[in-house]
Amino acid sequence: MQVWKDYQVQNKDRFLEELLELLRIPSVSADSRFNPDVKNCAEAVKLRLQEAGAEKVEVCPTAGHPIVYGEKIIDPKLPTVLVYGHYDVQPADPLELWDSGPFEPVIKDEKIYARGSADDKGQFYMHVKAFETMSKTNTLPCNIKFMIEGEEEVGSANLGIFIKENKERLKADVVLISDTAMISLENPSLDTGLRGLSYMEVAVTGPNRDLHSGVYGGAVANPATILCKMIASMHDENNHITIPGFYDKVQDLSQAERDALNAAPFDEAEYKADLGVDELWGEKGYSTIERTGIRPTLEVNGIWGGYTGEGSKTVLPSKAFAKISMRLVPNQDWVEISQLFQAHFEKIAPKSVKVKVTTHHGGSPYVTPTDHIAFKAANEAIQATFGKAPIPMRGGGSIPIVALFEKELGLKTILMGFGLDSDNLHSPNEKYGLANFYKGIETIPYFHKYFAELSK
Amino acid sequence: MQVWKDYQVQNKDRFLEELLELLRIPSVSADSRFNPDVKNCAEAVKLRLQEAGAEKVEVCPTAGHPIVYGEKIIDPKLPTVLVYGHYDVQPADPLELWDSGPFEPVIKDEKIYARGSADDKGQFYMHVKAFETMSKTNTLPCNIKFMIEGEEEVGSANLGIFIKENKERLKADVVLISDTAMISLENPSLDTGLRGLSYMEVAVTGPNRDLHSGVYGGAVANPATILCKMIASMHDENNHITIPGFYDKVQDLSQAERDALNAAPFDEAEYKADLGVDELWGEKGYSTIERTGIRPTLEVNGIWGGYTGEGSKTVLPSKAFAKISMRLVPNQDWVEISQLFQAHFEKIAPKSVKVKVTTHHGGSPYVTPTDHIAFKAANEAIQATFGKAPIPMRGGGSIPIVALFEKELGLKTILMGFGLDSDNLHSPNEKYGLANFYKGIETIPYFHKYFAELSK
Repeated sequence: MQVWKDYQVQNKDRFLEELLELLRIPSVSADSRFNPDVKNCAEAVKLRLQEAGAEKVEVCPTAGHPIVYGEKIIDPKLPTVLVYGHYDVQPADPLELWDSGPFEPVIKDEKIYARGSADDKGQFYMHVKAFETMSKTNTLPCNIKFMIEGEEEVGSANLGIFIKENKERLKADVVLISDTAMISLENPSLDTGLRGLSYMEVAVTGPNRDLHSGVYGGAVANPATILCKMIASMHDENNHITIPGFYDKVQDLSQAERDALNAAPFDEAEYKADLGVDELWGEKGYSTIERTGIRPTLEVNGIWGGYTGEGSKTVLPSKAFAKISMRLVPNQDWVEISQLFQAHFEKIAPKSVKVKVTTHHGGSPYVTPTDHIAFKAANEAIQATFGKAPIPMRGGGSIPIVALFEKELGLKTILMGFGLDSDNLHSPNEKYGLANFYKGIETIPYFHKYFAELSK
Repeated sequence: MQVWKDYQVQNKDRFLEELLELLRIPSVSADSRFNPDVKNCAEAVKLRLQEAGAEKVEVCPTAGHPIVYGEKIIDPKLPTVLVYGHYDVQPADPLELWDSGPFEPVIKDEKIYARGSADDKGQFYMHVKAFETMSKTNTLPCNIKFMIEGEEEVGSANLGIFIKENKERLKADVVLISDTAMISLENPSLDTGLRGLSYMEVAVTGPNRDLHSGVYGGAVANPATILCKMIASMHDENNHITIPGFYDKVQDLSQAERDALNAAPFDEAEYKADLGVDELWGEKGYSTIERTGIRPTLEVNGIWGGYTGEGSKTVLPSKAFAKISMRLVPNQDWVEISQLFQAHFEKIAPKSVKVKVTTHHGGSPYVTPTDHIAFKAANEAIQATFGKAPIPMRGGGSIPIVALFEKELGLKTILMGFGLDSDNLHSPNEKYGLANFYKGIETIPYFHKYFAELSK
């Protein structure tokens, strides 16, 4: 619509300036030293929602970081879209690998470099600006509610409680989220599902104190060695996960569905070159697209034990630790998988060590109903602004809360991400393309338009 | 000799006070932040040697930490004993596991708790006080030279250079070291050998940056997982080390020799209880005494990679690291073993990662010549003060420099340690028994006496 285009062209620079301002707030939810920044960020989001035309805007306290809520109800008889996003970000470390300050955004090669630029500040803010576009031009086709939380990167523990306590306020017809990626601006895609997550931490204790590796070495189980053996045993020679029962509920896709997924453009040479690896790795019998989309995984996110400083120390450590997370696919249940992991880890531990397994957090996988009118609306919106239909894709990441939306609010979720896999989410030098940012702002109003039309 | 006994009884408290003063200096050689303390410690050792009666005492600079030299030549025709020790200590971390400050020595249950109390300040200082006893009572039976270094805990790189450049000054008939343990004061033992050491560090690189474990998990090799698999593969199901050629030069002991070793008192239940483990671990077919004495080992001294902070981060790390050391037995050569390790580690690395192997330091194993008159002298000295002959034992630790003494100076080394395996060397709450300290001071003069007599 020309009126949207005109408004967005006129306000282009301000949209970006406002995003950069948001990116300057180090709203790291995992690290309590940043608590004041997280709070400031919530207040900034509140202000921007108000300016954009939202009503009843509120920074809602939780037991953890607050949730920002706002809404614009133009007609209770019209359909309502609940926009979800998160203003918290991952920790920025390792800091030394950033080319510029993670919270000092810079524009380089038409990309915004900053922690949170793609995940998720740059993406949820597209919704704020798309809403502003419709609101200021009096063209809102439906009701919109915003729920922007501050704990997505630490498991959204308090969002579940908030949802349960605010079912009436959150009443809607569909949830819309931009917190995922598309293949490219040339090959837009639309997520048809997300993997679930089960995030564990394990501690292996050998002797009750660090020992001299000469005096005791060879006679006492080294917990680091044992932990390595236990982790090593969790993938077999075909990189299948060996936890008994792990695959029991995995939904196998039909050959036609797999073929459709594999029809997506994928350049293995380019993928490898981008990552700097000579060879890919993964579960035998599946393509890279399948390995990251429709198959569950088990990854070591962190491992530590013994002397890790400069130089050498001949110690046989008392303890070794690992953070291990599993990505889950339909119909795996994250609580069940966490239990299977724990039982298996405890079972394979030799008697020479003691193990302790704890669950950090998790979420179940999700499949988008591709026959839902909201999926059709997203499809048409992308077609309207990109000039071609999006390729259906399974996202490898997890937004654990999506399963909760369905359970608690009875709502389906549409995952309309505008990021790229190469945006360095959770990594140093996270970035978000300016074109992606503006394309999102351009596309989102069409979603609301088509969703309202298809709802009639 | 009564004159020694009288002198030692009179000066008992001062001996201890002086040691505690030395233990208050945090002479951590591995960490450059402690460089001034290491230097102060060398100066303190110099002063004490001078006070004890040594001459030509000098703090000799090296490219690293200095070496303290001193001597007392009473008659060039008499035999000369070169006493070696080290005034540097291991890092004290993990600090939170100490019950009292590592550099604030306290006496509890008749033991001195402090970093370096047993390794090696408390032990080399026995030699200074034994020397003082003989010197101040004009009963020195032979010439004595002292070489107390400051880099033993970091591989003694500069001691080798010092020895090469000071062959004339270091001329002697035997080297005497107290830097090992005996079974107990009730069951004194004498080391008949030491294991060698090869200390390596490995780095495994997967993707060129930390990745989002959802977006890339399952499709890209995780260097932490791969490192675990590589480390796990280095011991087979019988806990034999799998590096090709690793055992080729290992000297097998005769059954009679093994029987003699195993005749040493060893209470497995007590050993397990002390370490807090339910089951021991080690190479199949060998006893605990053999596993720590006559068999080579491979231990993970440290491992790290990915996110190791509080909470969770869903990262697929770019890099993972480990410090791995091997204890060697006759006739393994540490340089050759380091090369075998490197070649093997590089060979077993899958193409999906890159590996880098570096050698920190090492030293070859050593076997004491039990038919040497100095070994006989040590044997008789222990018999004189303990009232029973020492049990011959193989020490599990390494003093890499011992092999150099033989190569560069043509000298055999006698390892007359007075510590206990349970002294928490390299661990929090390192301790040294007061009785061990005083028994060492009492015994050492007899070594010199018998060595001088047997040399005639």
